[in-house]
Amino acid sequence: MTYSLTVRDHMMIAHSFTGEAFGPAQNLHGATFVVDATFRAAELHADGVVVDIGRASEALREILSSLSYRNLDDEPAFQGVNTTTERLCSFVAERLVDAARDGGLGGADLTGIAVTLHESHIAWASYEVSL
Amino acid sequence: MTYSLTVRDHMMIAHSFTGEAFGPAQNLHGATFVVDATFRAAELHADGVVVDIGRASEALREILSSLSYRNLDDEPAFQGVNTTTERLCSFVAERLVDAARDGGLGGADLTGIAVTLHESHIAWASYEVSL
Amino acid sequence: MTYSLTVRDHMMIAHSFTGEAFGPAQNLHGATFVVDATFRAAELHADGVVVDIGRASEALREILSSLSYRNLDDEPAFQGVNTTTERLCSFVAERLVDAARDGGLGGADLTGIAVTLHESHIAWASYEVSL
Amino acid sequence: MTYSLTVRDHMMIAHSFTGEAFGPAQNLHGATFVVDATFRAAELHADGVVVDIGRASEALREILSSLSYRNLDDEPAFQGVNTTTERLCSFVAERLVDAARDGGLGGADLTGIAVTLHESHIAWASYEVSL
Amino acid sequence: MTYSLTVRDHMMIAHSFTGEAFGPAQNLHGATFVVDATFRAAELHADGVVVDIGRASEALREILSSLSYRNLDDEPAFQGVNTTTERLCSFVAERLVDAARDGGLGGADLTGIAVTLHESHIAWASYEVSL
Amino acid sequence: MTYSLTVRDHMMIAHSFTGEAFGPAQNLHGATFVVDATFRAAELHADGVVVDIGRASEALREILSSLSYRNLDDEPAFQGVNTTTERLCSFVAERLVDAARDGGLGGADLTGIAVTLHESHIAWASYEVSL
Repeated sequence: MTYSLTVRDHMMIAHSFTGEAFGPAQNLHGATFVVDATFRAAELHADGVVVDIGRASEALREILSSLSYRNLDDEPAFQGVNTTTERLCSFVAERLVDAARDGGLGGADLTGIAVTLHESHIAWASYEVSL
Repeated sequence: MTYSLTVRDHMMIAHSFTGEAFGPAQNLHGATFVVDATFRAAELHADGVVVDIGRASEALREILSSLSYRNLDDEPAFQGVNTTTERLCSFVAERLVDAARDGGLGGADLTGIAVTLHESHIAWASYEVSL
Repeated sequence: MTYSLTVRDHMMIAHSFTGEAFGPAQNLHGATFVVDATFRAAELHADGVVVDIGRASEALREILSSLSYRNLDDEPAFQGVNTTTERLCSFVAERLVDAARDGGLGGADLTGIAVTLHESHIAWASYEVSL
Repeated sequence: MTYSLTVRDHMMIAHSFTGEAFGPAQNLHGATFVVDATFRAAELHADGVVVDIGRASEALREILSSLSYRNLDDEPAFQGVNTTTERLCSFVAERLVDAARDGGLGGADLTGIAVTLHESHIAWASYEVSL
Repeated sequence: MTYSLTVRDHMMIAHSFTGEAFGPAQNLHGATFVVDATFRAAELHADGVVVDIGRASEALREILSSLSYRNLDDEPAFQGVNTTTERLCSFVAERLVDAARDGGLGGADLTGIAVTLHESHIAWASYEVSL
Repeated sequence: MTYSLTVRDHMMIAHSFTGEAFGPAQNLHGATFVVDATFRAAELHADGVVVDIGRASEALREILSSLSYRNLDDEPAFQGVNTTTERLCSFVAERLVDAARDGGLGGADLTGIAVTLHESHIAWASYEVSL
């Protein structure tokens, strides 16, 4: 048995990619990422929840605020790597893992966190980690 | 290899939560839950299906009808527990497990059932059980 | 020529309806309403906007907060009337008209406001008013 | 009586805004715009269509390709103005008006064109012009 | 002021088109049409509704059932014309106009009916008629 | 840890089903399938991607083009079997497995491929295979 709870938010960023495979996306461009953060647990907390939805939403909001309205090409955290949708998924997920540590999001003992970033109506990426 | 088939329906209920973590949701309020029921199988039935989609939809409809247009605070099944989105997922899923028993939904041997309840455009929960 | 800008938010309420036509919805139940507020103008403000999206979102948030997590049957504003999706659309829209008065949302001279409430994945209502 | 046909595509751009009202969006950032182009007619073409959907989709694709994967701050067409969602709607719509002139999209006599740009799951803008 | 109420349903049909402009769609193929039926009124019925949502949904269901799971090329109603998305919109809308006549859908005096058929995630058509 | 990348496209086909359980769907009818193809990997390629999104989209497009605008009842590949949504999921997924072989989609070593076909707003099926 697995329970999960997902909250959605978004961020808007500029960036460019390095590598011929990216074609015109090598130019400086941007994206809206609609972000789904999923928290998993084998059992519910006594309150009947996987996480405190308010704290989970706020944790996600804080992480996305640190990226949103920025040119990711200029961010120290991403020097030397492409800020692909896949990589941004893992970046957000690992920050959520930090936030969840020691019960920081309230709720149950988490068994996993997954993050999906929708880059358009026809493409999205995910990253999932077990805890 | 895993096959799955999902059907969607919805229910509209009133309820309130107990626990300070719920903030204003401790008040009597309500929700529309858009409900996705997923059935999994390792092999398809000879007809090429996981379940008979008509019977699966009807089974889901019946379960949701027993909850919809009600104040869940008054339902004997939920005394002493919070009817969180997570818990309602497991309630619906376990009823579907009952309905699927002994081939009640037609189709293949099921290996799992999952239920997702969308409580808004920015939050949803799931419960998954292996069979 | 007409420009418009729409922002989306949501609220979760309990209520019941009076009238046999409502069938089981005469019982106390509830709904999540995903709310789209649309602002129209014939010309853009010099900044290139219809309204200040931050102020418009905040005005919508404030109106929805005054209804959310409540039993609308107990609200003085709705005594003697059914809080149907249609009527809640007009309630929210007229509050937005108030908020927009005298340029309260920044931006251009508004020519109209429309509000859509989605009560499920298969039903929604709208109300539109000219200014 | 009005008929309409809508096709959807998208573009990914970088830009920044001028004006204190934009807050953090004054920084260089970006957006995915999911773009809906709507064509209206009072009568259908003999083939039963408003426009040739293939030609309409291609016309939209061409316009979006001229903007996508670019920093709009550097584009001559947008010097001195904010490339807000509203303004980009009118830019795309007016290019579609040009493409539709003299029956360039096949189909019926068009009476109007509307363009909606979705900047996220919670905000979108539109521009509508009569022909 | 305009109120509206929309209900969604769907149908699955086979058909083919006549005319070189249709390219490969001249072959026998098919479509799922997700159908949105919108009813408009200037004033609400005393119950607070535009139409009785149950009767409106049933009227739509009946119309779609008369088309669904059929090859429209064989239907007498469509001989000699292309069953384009646009034309099917008007077919469904005119049947709803018939159903609404003499208050057949309950509710307020209707001022208009609109029908949208979504043929895919990237294309849809509409037809709107005043009453 | 699992990364995934999903791209969406669609196809429009005619078909009929054999077996009383299918009811009216035994008639020739059709469907739009909105198709989501998901590629999974444990590690990202040096470029930061799971697959080359351009090549993945093109591979999916090619497979869907071989089915779209056809009557699947006439296709040699499907003689003697029902072309249910479930079975078409596996058909598309296995073709993608072929396309991915020997790095044909660029990117990382794939650990799995999943395909979801949405047949309407209320029903979809999936097939997932490990590599």
